[in-house]
Amino acid sequence: MALKRPSAKRIFASFTNMASQARHYSAPGESSIPPAKQKYVPTSGNYPKGFLAASAHVGVKASNTRFDDLALIASETPCNAAAVFTKNKFQAAPVTVSRDILQKRSGSGVRAVVVNSGCANAVTGKGGLADAEQMAKETDRCFDSEDDGLGIRSIVMSTGVIGQRLPIKKIIHKIPSAYSDLGSSHAHWLRTARAICTTDTFPKLLSRQFTLPSSPSTTYTIAGMTKGAGMIHPNMATLLGIICTDAPIGNPALQSMLSNAIDKSFNSISIDGDTSTNDTVALLANGAAGGTEIKTTDSPGFDKMQETLTDFATDLAKLVVRDGEGATKFVTLRIQGAANEPSAKRIASTIARSPLVKTALYGKDANWGRILCATGYTEGADDSIEPEEISVSFVPSDGSAELKLLVKGEPQNVDEKRAGEILEMEDLEILIKLNDREGGFESVFWTCDFSHEYVTINADYRT
Amino acid sequence: MALKRPSAKRIFASFTNMASQARHYSAPGESSIPPAKQKYVPTSGNYPKGFLAASAHVGVKASNTRFDDLALIASETPCNAAAVFTKNKFQAAPVTVSRDILQKRSGSGVRAVVVNSGCANAVTGKGGLADAEQMAKETDRCFDSEDDGLGIRSIVMSTGVIGQRLPIKKIIHKIPSAYSDLGSSHAHWLRTARAICTTDTFPKLLSRQFTLPSSPSTTYTIAGMTKGAGMIHPNMATLLGIICTDAPIGNPALQSMLSNAIDKSFNSISIDGDTSTNDTVALLANGAAGGTEIKTTDSPGFDKMQETLTDFATDLAKLVVRDGEGATKFVTLRIQGAANEPSAKRIASTIARSPLVKTALYGKDANWGRILCATGYTEGADDSIEPEEISVSFVPSDGSAELKLLVKGEPQNVDEKRAGEILEMEDLEILIKLNDREGGFESVFWTCDFSHEYVTINADYRT
Repeated sequence: MALKRPSAKRIFASFTNMASQARHYSAPGESSIPPAKQKYVPTSGNYPKGFLAASAHVGVKASNTRFDDLALIASETPCNAAAVFTKNKFQAAPVTVSRDILQKRSGSGVRAVVVNSGCANAVTGKGGLADAEQMAKETDRCFDSEDDGLGIRSIVMSTGVIGQRLPIKKIIHKIPSAYSDLGSSHAHWLRTARAICTTDTFPKLLSRQFTLPSSPSTTYTIAGMTKGAGMIHPNMATLLGIICTDAPIGNPALQSMLSNAIDKSFNSISIDGDTSTNDTVALLANGAAGGTEIKTTDSPGFDKMQETLTDFATDLAKLVVRDGEGATKFVTLRIQGAANEPSAKRIASTIARSPLVKTALYGKDANWGRILCATGYTEGADDSIEPEEISVSFVPSDGSAELKLLVKGEPQNVDEKRAGEILEMEDLEILIKLNDREGGFESVFWTCDFSHEYVTINADYRT
Repeated sequence: MALKRPSAKRIFASFTNMASQARHYSAPGESSIPPAKQKYVPTSGNYPKGFLAASAHVGVKASNTRFDDLALIASETPCNAAAVFTKNKFQAAPVTVSRDILQKRSGSGVRAVVVNSGCANAVTGKGGLADAEQMAKETDRCFDSEDDGLGIRSIVMSTGVIGQRLPIKKIIHKIPSAYSDLGSSHAHWLRTARAICTTDTFPKLLSRQFTLPSSPSTTYTIAGMTKGAGMIHPNMATLLGIICTDAPIGNPALQSMLSNAIDKSFNSISIDGDTSTNDTVALLANGAAGGTEIKTTDSPGFDKMQETLTDFATDLAKLVVRDGEGATKFVTLRIQGAANEPSAKRIASTIARSPLVKTALYGKDANWGRILCATGYTEGADDSIEPEEISVSFVPSDGSAELKLLVKGEPQNVDEKRAGEILEMEDLEILIKLNDREGGFESVFWTCDFSHEYVTINADYRT
């Protein structure tokens, strides 16, 4: 397979022409990576054996005349795949088509994921379904896979504006170009991660190596990319995620593992509480590194693989929060002492979407009253909330002592100067102990603040 | 009863010193009424017989050295009362105390409502409860009511910052001053309506006359005041409402009537989805105009009175939306064709709190995709949503033809120029027909947009 290798330098250059945190609405553009975000973009990586990545320029949005907006991630051999899709009642065409493809194949024999940014292909009727299917079929045509009678082998994803049809001819035309550019270098992966971005200010790519007790001498690799950055809330948002590993994992273990991991990662973040029509996270496993296959949840190695995947997906999901639209803060919500896990998660999710909490965080205001207030109006968590038992603290990200705001329902005499210092830091943990009860349940959730920039970004998204 | 009569002009003057839409955070202040809002402030009114109103300056917030922040609404004779309180698990002291007072009295023999702005007396422990009770008792002491063995006769409300104790001595000290200033003029009512305001840009006061078929020759009057303007969402927000009528209504009819009316008015509005610790709407009926008492829901006159009250409460609630923090738009959401009423209301409520929908409205962007998206992630409304059946239109407020955005799941070729014209108007109706089904259910909800100013207001509320 012939490879062109764009340098990482070139990719950075295209991001660094502008100083402001300009965002490119529904198509990747020539924006700078804000200095504070550059540390989240890897300069090298280890990528799973037998996976290749590439991008190409289509110009899905007519105004995008230069930047890659088509991404292709492929396995050199047919692989196993699983996916988690949006629960929105309005599901975009690529969601419907990809779910169908995976179902027909029982998640095996998959070759590639093809993604376009710039248009979501959502609420586009039968024509939209045909477009999504055509994208997948055209991708299939690039591979010399035997017809196994199970139909299409490529999954399709789209992200961008809702209600507009894809420029399908232009996309089809460029799939072979992307295919011929496939490669396994860091630059290939980074460029591909960038092509799926919309309002993101930086590409989100991670990779990691690990071992499994079931095959102790084998080094496995996992890599993944995702994109945000608005409409993010469980389940799941205009977010896309693609995770690839060369570990040998089969279905049903693969789907089960992904669903568990998503629950504690992509379904535990919120930017603005909106959940979209297109959200999809796919996990591909080609077994190229060898070893014993993990086939079911009882297989040796499942638990360690689950742990590895959940951690990895969590780190990917956190990158989405780091790049929340207009975000200036990264906030961890830790809810402890709940009567059960769903209550803990509901409380976290409710606080995470409260505009009053989020604007107070933006204003660096230790307004715990709003945190309490959001806790108190959480639906379906009555069993976990006793006003006289609740304690709220800020846990500083520099490891210094927590600042107690409320202890067992009693407001503390808060050192506002210290509160101000803690809120000056980019990272903050809000710790809510609902109760000291033995065996109480915990939920951890990640969110960001709500700024003027969020309003600016979303008030003229389409213009 | 000796009366001082402050002129309406004086009240206006104190509001009109500044040109910008400055808001006074948790205490009424010297802000101008924005020119566009002046039409919502009545210059005269008819007030119910036997009710009196007054305000006084306490300086609940130390920074408030000049503006009235204590309000007193009294009935010349003991009257019937009902109230609806916040459902937040953290209920402010005045909520707990007032609920208790009404319960002990079975809603009869009530003399007054005493309200302070500037401090919510919420999450203030046992001390806060004692403060709220003391406010009510001190108000009682002004009246020469016989002890009927049912305890306190005055209801108490507070609004403002959470987690701070009331300056109770200062408040107690000023209750007799407010009492001695009680009066029934329009200026009294307007001044009182202003004293309960926090971040409001204008006082919210309405009055109206009506007749009942049960006493056709009698003219009745209803008057009410309310305040917003953030943390507004069912049920119910840092909002307070006091409605008084001289119609003869007894309990249980009074409570039932109020609960029904609130459901379709104050519980059908949303500014930001946050619901607070203090929300209370009270209804007082003293029967001073005479006529046959409406005692139960079967009493003659109940239906007409219910209709009158619901309409009145709806108009009051709409004033809160008109003054939503940072709001530039007044949006009516009309959901039709639902499988049941709760589903219709859940969909309306979900759209009303979507930051993406609200910022698009602020940006005058006909982004129906976001409206659809919010519809699609509504929890508990699956039975009402079929993607192929839904239609979405903008209904212009000038009576011109509706603009169809989506018809039975098919995006329309939208005239963006026309969409822009419609979105230029302050008022907008978004009409969502879920289905053409016979006998489908409807819900109407009122909300506003989400602007930079909302962020500004709420990022430094406490400073």
